[in-house]
Amino acid sequence: MSCRVTDHALATVDRYRERLAAFTALPSVGGDPAQARAMEDTRSFLEGLIAEAGFTNQRRLGPADSGHQALYAERLEHPGAPTLLVYGHYDVQPPEPYDLWHSPPFEMTERDGRLYARGISDDKGPLLIALHALAAFEAVDGTLPLNVKLLIEGEEETGSPSMPAILNENADLLSADAMLSADGGRWRADLLTLNVGSRGSGGFEITLRTAAKDLHSGRYGGAVPNALHEMARLLAGLHDDAGRITCPGFTDGLPEPDADERAEMANIPFDEGAFADALGTVPQGEDGYTTLERLWLRPTVELNGMWGGHTGAGGKTVTPAEAHAKITLRFPPGQDAARAQDAVIADLRARTPAGATLDVFDVRQATDAASVPQGHPLLIACGDALEAVHGHRPRHVRMGASLPLVNMIKDVLGIETVMFSFSTSDEDFHAPNEFLRAASIPEGIAAWVAVLRRAGALDVDAFTPYRG
Amino acid sequence: MSCRVTDHALATVDRYRERLAAFTALPSVGGDPAQARAMEDTRSFLEGLIAEAGFTNQRRLGPADSGHQALYAERLEHPGAPTLLVYGHYDVQPPEPYDLWHSPPFEMTERDGRLYARGISDDKGPLLIALHALAAFEAVDGTLPLNVKLLIEGEEETGSPSMPAILNENADLLSADAMLSADGGRWRADLLTLNVGSRGSGGFEITLRTAAKDLHSGRYGGAVPNALHEMARLLAGLHDDAGRITCPGFTDGLPEPDADERAEMANIPFDEGAFADALGTVPQGEDGYTTLERLWLRPTVELNGMWGGHTGAGGKTVTPAEAHAKITLRFPPGQDAARAQDAVIADLRARTPAGATLDVFDVRQATDAASVPQGHPLLIACGDALEAVHGHRPRHVRMGASLPLVNMIKDVLGIETVMFSFSTSDEDFHAPNEFLRAASIPEGIAAWVAVLRRAGALDVDAFTPYRG
Repeated sequence: MSCRVTDHALATVDRYRERLAAFTALPSVGGDPAQARAMEDTRSFLEGLIAEAGFTNQRRLGPADSGHQALYAERLEHPGAPTLLVYGHYDVQPPEPYDLWHSPPFEMTERDGRLYARGISDDKGPLLIALHALAAFEAVDGTLPLNVKLLIEGEEETGSPSMPAILNENADLLSADAMLSADGGRWRADLLTLNVGSRGSGGFEITLRTAAKDLHSGRYGGAVPNALHEMARLLAGLHDDAGRITCPGFTDGLPEPDADERAEMANIPFDEGAFADALGTVPQGEDGYTTLERLWLRPTVELNGMWGGHTGAGGKTVTPAEAHAKITLRFPPGQDAARAQDAVIADLRARTPAGATLDVFDVRQATDAASVPQGHPLLIACGDALEAVHGHRPRHVRMGASLPLVNMIKDVLGIETVMFSFSTSDEDFHAPNEFLRAASIPEGIAAWVAVLRRAGALDVDAFTPYRG
Repeated sequence: MSCRVTDHALATVDRYRERLAAFTALPSVGGDPAQARAMEDTRSFLEGLIAEAGFTNQRRLGPADSGHQALYAERLEHPGAPTLLVYGHYDVQPPEPYDLWHSPPFEMTERDGRLYARGISDDKGPLLIALHALAAFEAVDGTLPLNVKLLIEGEEETGSPSMPAILNENADLLSADAMLSADGGRWRADLLTLNVGSRGSGGFEITLRTAAKDLHSGRYGGAVPNALHEMARLLAGLHDDAGRITCPGFTDGLPEPDADERAEMANIPFDEGAFADALGTVPQGEDGYTTLERLWLRPTVELNGMWGGHTGAGGKTVTPAEAHAKITLRFPPGQDAARAQDAVIADLRARTPAGATLDVFDVRQATDAASVPQGHPLLIACGDALEAVHGHRPRHVRMGASLPLVNMIKDVLGIETVMFSFSTSDEDFHAPNEFLRAASIPEGIAAWVAVLRRAGALDVDAFTPYRG
């Protein structure tokens, strides 16, 4: 083993770029039926690269007649060595609105050190970084330093509807010691980090009915309930004036962050004012916590939508009989998500005024927060790899958002996932003018070569304590 | 003067019905440009009836090039006698949804003592009652018992956009001692009433902004404000737990109903439970007041619409940056409407959280409640007329809704308006299957003959104290 693989991988970065241009030229918008042909072209494109990197047993997973199949392939040439499941996805968000793009979304364009294209940051660039590193091992050594299984999804941007079935039906095929994901996103461009956890999530919708029909607000106003007022009161009552969620039982068992944890977070360079300024807002949340604590260690009940009555142009003198809200929840480590979600629903029901009815529906299965254990060998290997490339160790950080796939992988395959993408969270994925920093490409390639080599050096038994 | 006019008017009720059938067969939907021809046919139809009733100086008021002109005519044959301005309107609400009608909306159909057609209760039947009574005087006496000016509007159902200009530009032409309106609606079928007042009204819209753009509810939730939460809190804070409006200064100067007033209202037969049951709701409002007191003597701040964030199908993990609400207010007698509306807006501004912005727009001019003074000669004449027809005096009641025209008439012409319609408020105007009780027709005809005769007997000076 030498630096020859890294050298080769970096020396061929032009080929990486050519391929990235070809990959991003394919409008693989999974949610758009009109792009079914482009999705198939994209699968064929990737299958060619995967074969070139020496992978075998290629197959497609999931239903062929609906949605978009995931690609699978493997190189299992080192009995007794660890096996990594490497994840990425080939579908992209829709490009609309076109008129806000400064260059065509399916024509990779470089400006000021940034490569612009739909899907380039999420997830084509990072996925191709992983494949480029894997191909470099093939080109130089003719083999990989460990066993690798590839799982490249085509439905990530449409909610991964087939993934639970794919995992359950192919659990043996996909079995591995850990998953290394080329998806996700680095927190910040100015701080080297590794993400070690995400909040769990839940959600539901509610409809409140206070009368059989809308009533004239002049003829009846003041003597009958108004569904919008009652909804406003219900929703305002979810938090107290200190920003704390007040639903009885909601935080039962949720530990307060301890002094060490708080000190560690306080030590992360983070400018609350600049953070809020960039969003055109002010820091606001539960009293007594910093912004990072609020994002990483505290739960939320968020209103995603709220509506009722006349919402069109002009006035209408109506006392609405129905009001609606869409609500999602986030759960930090240590919170029993299912119990907490039930507590919110129970509180809304308990506070529904007499004579009104509350329908709670589309209740999602609440998922607990995910955390990669600090001692997990792949997490350590990723840290080592980043240190080798950057000269210093990454900070461990969490994210406020949720990673449903990570929960699914843990539940079905019993393994941990480390996110090792080289996109950055500010790169406007899901928005016009998505870009990837050009400098991230060599960093990512070098880091993927380094982590594969380090993971290959691990004793397979080191993973055992972390497998479910 | 004798009962001969009443006898004639009632003996020719078949002709009334034929004309009502012809009148309601004209689809005079003023808001539908496709019915412009029907609107013109309706004007011509009425002009024929008006001429037949002996009126002269017919003309059309208001802009001819936009909207629908009002009809004017007069019989001013009794110098020194009172002059009444008689009001009605010839436009109707749209008939949609057609499929809910049990008989065609523009084909008058009788079932179980009810005559069904769009506009038959609002306001074609009641307007034709007034015209039928006026025509009976012409047929029997060759003159009216007093001076009458007709004002028949064609834009009532579309918000009377031309009426302020019509009144201002024709103030001399329209000058009178009082207005008698064939529009409105009797409160209940089971109680003889005269409406002596309505609440004033106001309204505005608000938009609350808490950030420059919508944010991901996982990535940012808990550390940034959510516009929907803040809007819910703002709106929930308009009332206290006792249902009282809490905006500082809102009720300044508003008198509490006195014991006599409360006793009088308590004496009106009214079943709160049945009222709420019929609406599929429960009585709810300011603690310490009855339903009628809440409707007639207390103010409201009503949410007519509220919305923000994702309101379509499915979920979206968004922390919305904007929330919206449409608000209307009602003001009882004794409340300074403009000051009260300002107090609500000032309170919303004062409670807008730091870092958020509140836009208040489309602010309507707040109007005070309207009340016909108890001693007004036309009100007394109307009571006498109803007593003559029904054998007992009507109760004086108020309404919770507002009558902008009554305020306009008072402001511009300086005169009071008495509502003397023979529709009833449960007759589904503005809804499918609008109807007029057949029994209301002879009652109304007899009452209009009686009130015209009684008003003609009044001394014109009796109106002087009530003219502005």
